[in-house]
Amino acid sequence: MFFKVKTSEEVQEILKGFKPVGMETIPISEALNRVLAKEIVSQEDMPGFSRSSMDGYAVRAKDTFGAADSLPAFLDLAGEVIMGKEPDGRVISGKAMKISTGGMIPDGADAVVMLEYCHSVDEKTIEVSRTVAPLENIIGKGDDFRKGEVIFKKGTVLRPQDIGLLAGLGIEKIPVYRKPQVGIISTGDEVVPIHQKPGPGQVRDINSYTLSAFCLQAGAIPVNLGLCKDNFEEMREKAGKVLEFCDTVWISGGSSVGTRDMTVKVLESFDGMELLVHGIAISPGKPTIIARIGSKAVFGLPGHVASAMVVAEIFLNPFLAVLSGKVLSSGNAHQSLQAVLERNVESVSGRDDYIRVKLCQRNGKYLADPVFGKSGLISTLVEADGLVKIDRNTEGLYKGQTVSVLLFRPVENEE
Amino acid sequence: MFFKVKTSEEVQEILKGFKPVGMETIPISEALNRVLAKEIVSQEDMPGFSRSSMDGYAVRAKDTFGAADSLPAFLDLAGEVIMGKEPDGRVISGKAMKISTGGMIPDGADAVVMLEYCHSVDEKTIEVSRTVAPLENIIGKGDDFRKGEVIFKKGTVLRPQDIGLLAGLGIEKIPVYRKPQVGIISTGDEVVPIHQKPGPGQVRDINSYTLSAFCLQAGAIPVNLGLCKDNFEEMREKAGKVLEFCDTVWISGGSSVGTRDMTVKVLESFDGMELLVHGIAISPGKPTIIARIGSKAVFGLPGHVASAMVVAEIFLNPFLAVLSGKVLSSGNAHQSLQAVLERNVESVSGRDDYIRVKLCQRNGKYLADPVFGKSGLISTLVEADGLVKIDRNTEGLYKGQTVSVLLFRPVENEE
Repeated sequence: MFFKVKTSEEVQEILKGFKPVGMETIPISEALNRVLAKEIVSQEDMPGFSRSSMDGYAVRAKDTFGAADSLPAFLDLAGEVIMGKEPDGRVISGKAMKISTGGMIPDGADAVVMLEYCHSVDEKTIEVSRTVAPLENIIGKGDDFRKGEVIFKKGTVLRPQDIGLLAGLGIEKIPVYRKPQVGIISTGDEVVPIHQKPGPGQVRDINSYTLSAFCLQAGAIPVNLGLCKDNFEEMREKAGKVLEFCDTVWISGGSSVGTRDMTVKVLESFDGMELLVHGIAISPGKPTIIARIGSKAVFGLPGHVASAMVVAEIFLNPFLAVLSGKVLSSGNAHQSLQAVLERNVESVSGRDDYIRVKLCQRNGKYLADPVFGKSGLISTLVEADGLVKIDRNTEGLYKGQTVSVLLFRPVENEE
Repeated sequence: MFFKVKTSEEVQEILKGFKPVGMETIPISEALNRVLAKEIVSQEDMPGFSRSSMDGYAVRAKDTFGAADSLPAFLDLAGEVIMGKEPDGRVISGKAMKISTGGMIPDGADAVVMLEYCHSVDEKTIEVSRTVAPLENIIGKGDDFRKGEVIFKKGTVLRPQDIGLLAGLGIEKIPVYRKPQVGIISTGDEVVPIHQKPGPGQVRDINSYTLSAFCLQAGAIPVNLGLCKDNFEEMREKAGKVLEFCDTVWISGGSSVGTRDMTVKVLESFDGMELLVHGIAISPGKPTIIARIGSKAVFGLPGHVASAMVVAEIFLNPFLAVLSGKVLSSGNAHQSLQAVLERNVESVSGRDDYIRVKLCQRNGKYLADPVFGKSGLISTLVEADGLVKIDRNTEGLYKGQTVSVLLFRPVENEE
């Protein structure tokens, strides 16, 4: 079978064709970073009543008009608003009620004068030395959200403040997409479990652990099937088992032509298998295979962990976003930053090259220093903070050029 | 007691004085985003043997010198390297062994010729049409890391590729700092549990949920003590209980002078309490209290969730990094990005103002649009992507100015 190597854009388009996994309902305490599977409509006004945003006195604004240090307004004290209670009384012209931050504005009042502009004259009278405007220092009923208003769209990824809003509206059970389950199979006759001391020619299983951690970071659940020999029957059996209950399957290994061909043969042995991608015009990561079996995507990833990780960052990350139901608004920003390249980097045209860079800051600017070393070395990934793409239509990037760095993970906040 | 309001810088300096929590040993499968409590030294060379990075033939490089399409070199086939096995034989001058990607380089060979530059002449002979240099297409023993080399410093936050490297070295038990435990107490006579329908003057408990989610996001463990009335005895008891087993305590509520004073009185009732901060020159978030009780920091946070969240982003985030033992190298980048401000924003000098902004992208640039609205509104936080600081020595920021946006959370990758 002849298969043209696909461009990154073609592959991204193919991956967008998959559907999100199903939904479930979870308690609010577990909702951080989960993805809403339904839009959320406010069932009430928030806040449910007008509140003071300051410590002070609830008044009728016009009673303070013209008030100043030299000409204070005198108001009769009509009691105090107790926190968490309905005010006992109302404010009529010439009156004021003491109120704390968050207290309920009494009927009749339309503003709050801050405490520091009020002075007690006697037990029953205060003087006000500042004019307040109507609604000043008041958070009105429904100022945050009104009953019936859409507060979150389907596909929103919940942050702490979003969870706070759901709590404020009394929404304790949250409808979210399930976390996608990812079956991970690591192949290769040379690979041994990590507790084992490798013999000559053997290496430990790096990929299962790297890809599992990658899944966790992306909000998915890794199902680690462990090692598999380069053997048709064994791979067929493991893939079949994991396809039954996982949402996608990632088979890593097979950078050699022989093992890659076998992965394709295994996939072809499933009914209705459609080979979508056999090779991508990127480096590293070219020998990537993507097939559809039923409604599920199965990936054959390069055996070199560094190549597998580049494919994961560039393709599996957005693919998991699709499966997770995340809606990334078009105006949304990338998890990337602009940096100035520290050296010239050559590239072969006809494929997108992803180079690994280390970031540092100088004079408030980010600098990106290419990490050199053979792409099979995991050290190049460990030293790097992110990737820079060299487009297939260019022959390289120049020192001093501003480039966009796709971050492996948000760099820590230092402040 | 008179207390001068402290600047942000003074507060950050105070918070750096606290010590990381203790350590524990965890399995590698749970190590994502955990912080190493010890440096890690490689106990072996990685890789442990020289490997081929291509499918091809292992040869002596000098046997190929001068080889070209028009003048191929002829080599005798001396067998094949089986994956995961020690090569059966060695390569002497004039010989070649077939090898797959990842295979062990046989003794005598010092380079690999890619498959596509080799052609079988007969069963025992190949012709090579390209010169290879010594070490070409070989990953040498120890190229990644050498035995005895420090591979991770104490304080490193583990990413997927870092976990891959630990797996590759057979390190299954990882020494990390414990996750800090944060006791969270939400106070206020007006606050009711979220399952309850608030009566007049009452609101649901937003802060416990927001701060708990914030802790989870920062890699800490929230211990939610629930609601507490504005009552000395109750607050004293809850704070005392949680101080026994948590690493830090956060008491939110008390934006009114009265409740703030009570929080201070409760803290003062503990032996050896030292009031470190009583007010910070920032807005929102000024009425923040920080005390040291024993070795633990106790925070009194503003009751308005929007103010509490700003304090959390600016101070509690780096504080949790300190407790977690994270080492943020000085060259490290912020979780922030540069954006062009969309409107003028005024500010009061003498305090650092944090405005909330919404980001969008236009022509490859980020634009930051200030979210207006009273700071007590949670909607302003929900609409925002991050914060922009207006330094206390400036009177505002101008439309068109480039500003640094501290992101609430990494914005999603769209690619």
